Amino acid sequence: MENLWSMMRICLHIAYIGTDFCGWQVQAKQTGRRNRSIQGCLQDALERITGQKISVQGSGRTDSGVHALGQVAHFDVERRFAHIPWQMAINSQLPPEISILKAQEVSPDFHARFGVSGKCYSYTFWTEKTFLLPQRVPYVWQVWNLDFAKMRQAAEFLQGQHDFACFQNSGTEVRSTVRNIYRIWDEPGMYPQERVWYFYGSGFLKQMVRNIVGLLKEIGKGNLAPEATKELLAAKDRRLAPATAPARGLCLERVFYPDLKNGG
Amino acid sequence: MENLWSMMRICLHIAYIGTDFCGWQVQAKQTGRRNRSIQGCLQDALERITGQKISVQGSGRTDSGVHALGQVAHFDVERRFAHIPWQMAINSQLPPEISILKAQEVSPDFHARFGVSGKCYSYTFWTEKTFLLPQRVPYVWQVWNLDFAKMRQAAEFLQGQHDFACFQNSGTEVRSTVRNIYRIWDEPGMYPQERVWYFYGSGFLKQMVRNIVGLLKEIGKGNLAPEATKELLAAKDRRLAPATAPARGLCLERVFYPDLKNGG
Repeated sequence: MENLWSMMRICLHIAYIGTDFCGWQVQAKQTGRRNRSIQGCLQDALERITGQKISVQGSGRTDSGVHALGQVAHFDVERRFAHIPWQMAINSQLPPEISILKAQEVSPDFHARFGVSGKCYSYTFWTEKTFLLPQRVPYVWQVWNLDFAKMRQAAEFLQGQHDFACFQNSGTEVRSTVRNIYRIWDEPGMYPQERVWYFYGSGFLKQMVRNIVGLLKEIGKGNLAPEATKELLAAKDRRLAPATAPARGLCLERVFYPDLKNGG
Repeated sequence: MENLWSMMRICLHIAYIGTDFCGWQVQAKQTGRRNRSIQGCLQDALERITGQKISVQGSGRTDSGVHALGQVAHFDVERRFAHIPWQMAINSQLPPEISILKAQEVSPDFHARFGVSGKCYSYTFWTEKTFLLPQRVPYVWQVWNLDFAKMRQAAEFLQGQHDFACFQNSGTEVRSTVRNIYRIWDEPGMYPQERVWYFYGSGFLKQMVRNIVGLLKEIGKGNLAPEATKELLAAKDRRLAPATAPARGLCLERVFYPDLKNGG
């Protein structure tokens, strides 16, 4: 059957430095540097290229200050624009803090948000007390004397399907606070002073990764026992969990889709 | 013989992001963000800590926009300040773009500039045409389709002792333009799209590395033959050499001293 849809759907892979943005989502008052959003910059770029208002749908929001190496989004555009080299065209209209890593036409069945099968975030600690490399200031949380073995014990309690209500910040309405964390693990980072924690799961609640990192940090510091993790999960009360970790250490590494060909 | 000198000499290892600085050296008009210097920030920090004007002597200048992971400097201070934990104290007074990686007392014989036995610089290319990772914008020069084999041929002509007059920018007075490049080599960078070139030598003239990189880029692009390197060295005329490469790709990786114990 012929495709009679006059539109085409483009999927974008996006990297950004979240420091000077209000986050992914367009805000009502988009004025000044601190109110710039990633989504808003992308939509502005598409309007300059096509002369049309085009809505960009992301895989999900990221908070102000959170970075991405593999955010995914899609938009629909009239097929008469099919000749446009989207990656180059959009990149030429973006501030240097945002870059399109890949742009490809996808099936109209693909949906950047509803099609997500998993996400992977990283959180980077700078573990040296006496200095912080300037090049890494925007991307790390400086915490020293962390007991990684204890943090790994806690991480084991978090893996699997749980009600993560205790790790959800207010300000969102979701039907369920049950999520499935497939795996949490840590690796060396770019510099010997860094340790990177990865969180791979079906999806995450608002500030869930940063709240888990806040807990792992207290356990790593010896202020809480690894077993406190089980109690927090059972209590389902955000007020009992430690403070949220800073946004700057967090990065959306990758979004997974079961059906997207050529990566995703 | 007892040391009757009432002063002590402190050696600093320093990292910085050069983007928003006028360079290493204090400028006559130190006003506004673009006139901040690394040396000036260090001297301001020491004045806030000790209440005294203290001069900081670097291993050499770096230009505006050039970064460092291993700049070295020294200063002299009265021994009555010996109790100060210099690294932490200075770091607490510096902007986030500068950080002291190490601070140690050294012999009064040590001199950060006159004692230098070698320096190593890196220059990073971003070789992908279609995008530039935002996280790497301040640290790379985006050039694609480079023929590394030809660049390596040219690098071989540059290694060893030569008169590098053709690679010296104006604005400096040096007795001799003869320098010894011990070795030039390239390695993969932090990301698959990066290629890092290293320049290890006895010392370098003003903008010499950036001028050599400008030549290597033209050779890599196929606009000049590797053998042009020999002709340029023989001609000793800066006007014949290609344009200077951008500062942002350059980083002072390490300064070498034959006599400094515990690294250097």
